[in-house]
Amino acid sequence: MDMSEIRQDITTEEWVIIAKERALRPSEFARQQSRPELPAFSASCPFCPGNESMTPGEILIYRDKEAPGWRVRVVSNKFPALKPGGSTVRKIESGLFMSMDGVGIHEVIVETPEHNKILSLQEAGGIADILRAYRERYNAMKQESFVKLITIYKNYGPKAGTTLEHSHSQLIATPVVPRYMRIQFEVATRYYDNIGRCLYCDLASHEISTSDRLVMETEFFTVFHPFASHTPFETWIIPKRGQASFGNTTTQELADLAHVLRSVLLKIYTGLNNPDYNYVISSAPVDDENKDYYSWHIRIIPRLTELVGFEIGSGINLNTALPEETARFMRDL
Amino acid sequence: MDMSEIRQDITTEEWVIIAKERALRPSEFARQQSRPELPAFSASCPFCPGNESMTPGEILIYRDKEAPGWRVRVVSNKFPALKPGGSTVRKIESGLFMSMDGVGIHEVIVETPEHNKILSLQEAGGIADILRAYRERYNAMKQESFVKLITIYKNYGPKAGTTLEHSHSQLIATPVVPRYMRIQFEVATRYYDNIGRCLYCDLASHEISTSDRLVMETEFFTVFHPFASHTPFETWIIPKRGQASFGNTTTQELADLAHVLRSVLLKIYTGLNNPDYNYVISSAPVDDENKDYYSWHIRIIPRLTELVGFEIGSGINLNTALPEETARFMRDL
Repeated sequence: MDMSEIRQDITTEEWVIIAKERALRPSEFARQQSRPELPAFSASCPFCPGNESMTPGEILIYRDKEAPGWRVRVVSNKFPALKPGGSTVRKIESGLFMSMDGVGIHEVIVETPEHNKILSLQEAGGIADILRAYRERYNAMKQESFVKLITIYKNYGPKAGTTLEHSHSQLIATPVVPRYMRIQFEVATRYYDNIGRCLYCDLASHEISTSDRLVMETEFFTVFHPFASHTPFETWIIPKRGQASFGNTTTQELADLAHVLRSVLLKIYTGLNNPDYNYVISSAPVDDENKDYYSWHIRIIPRLTELVGFEIGSGINLNTALPEETARFMRDL
Repeated sequence: MDMSEIRQDITTEEWVIIAKERALRPSEFARQQSRPELPAFSASCPFCPGNESMTPGEILIYRDKEAPGWRVRVVSNKFPALKPGGSTVRKIESGLFMSMDGVGIHEVIVETPEHNKILSLQEAGGIADILRAYRERYNAMKQESFVKLITIYKNYGPKAGTTLEHSHSQLIATPVVPRYMRIQFEVATRYYDNIGRCLYCDLASHEISTSDRLVMETEFFTVFHPFASHTPFETWIIPKRGQASFGNTTTQELADLAHVLRSVLLKIYTGLNNPDYNYVISSAPVDDENKDYYSWHIRIIPRLTELVGFEIGSGINLNTALPEETARFMRDL
């Protein structure tokens, strides 16, 4: 029956209420329902082998020389949120309504040919392929002059906003740097100016030194539940070699990351009974990607609770889990 | 098959993608399932008459002199996110982890004694009582020196984050002004400095003049779907007499607002088949509530879609409805 605590996310200067009186034990967040069993192949699935013509133009494919078929495929999104062409010139109406064409790129990474192989249960080798495809597409997209920010993300399950069950993730390149990213970048720049080090690297090394919120650590990565976790079991993966852009990760780092991502997703799968989740890989704006101030990182958000009116209205998240407890729970799995 | 459009929310300078290729018709957003029928009284419900001892201290009650019982009750939240006492002095650990005690106030407005009377089906008189209770508690809370922002909100249905089905809404007073509110206030101040008028008033009067996104208009209020609606059917109610604080609304305005809220909630109930929703009444920070730059307003967010990874990562919302179409749909109901 402690008092709640208000904590600040230093990367965005947003406040989060850690609601101790309402706090649940980590195991209480586990998913209650089971999921329907999926077939290994679905004739109507655009991502299944043999149905390649159901997706728009193929952009990238990884296949084995000796074997038929493919391991990973990247295609254009059939219903793109943004697409190339059009103009980024702003139109202003009545001094109040600013808009531009929906210019950008929206691609889908089909993570596996198997309809029922979910990412949490993939081998590290398969995940390494996916990460390599992310990097390859990230670096191709940033060549386009209209691209200002590239977001790599995954939606798993209906609560995370997906309708297609065949395992996939997505990249969207936007022609604007949104305010949310500018804030993160400005905060990190100010920290760098003041302290002389990368904020994300400092955060990760403090999490290692206290270990209260640490989930795991490898040669190249630190995984933890942040001090001001916005939602229960929010999980961050930060590279030890701070680096503004995911596009500049080394092959050695990607191989390690595949193992890390596999372990973390498996912990979430096991500890929370295969919940819906999103993850997102944030990089600095393309124009800032050679600066040392920011580091790319992965945030995994299991979708365990709903946003309430207070959070929508104030921008202050209300978290009913203690990151120190959820991290210990994950560490011990 | 138009191209998407990227629109800017002028009140926060956030971008929203209006995804035209994925856009659904307004009627396609309607809720599919029916809701379980509720009893008029539930013996285990802390908000039902006769169970008053199940809630912590009563703060406010509206009752008829001639009749037994009550119409509206305000109580402390039994599991408060924040509560009075404690200190707002910031604690900083390792220069990275800032926190303070969970100081604040968290109250619940029980909107009706009837267990099964939902707000969307209340008479205007009942809604006027609820609005009066909001104003009364708002003005009481702002007397506390630690209170910096007061958010009034309602969660209706499990997707909106509520567990108690008996109709209620809530107030939270926070000891900090969150960044999200500071941004809104700064944007409105800059607009006022440049243009010499209140941004919210200008927005509302432009929506009246074009009428493309208008839902309804009364003597004191304008209701519309904003140009850069973040989610389908996001609905704004703005007072014609711009006013920083909801606490300063007049009794005449509240009476009109009761009719407006009743109409709008009924349109949402009818047109979208009784969906889950949140609404939030935003006021300026308490310390700024006598300034003309900002206006309090209500945002209603039907919970029709889920946030996807791209939105979480970039802060850019992806809206699959056209506000011009959804507003027309609502206007015509």
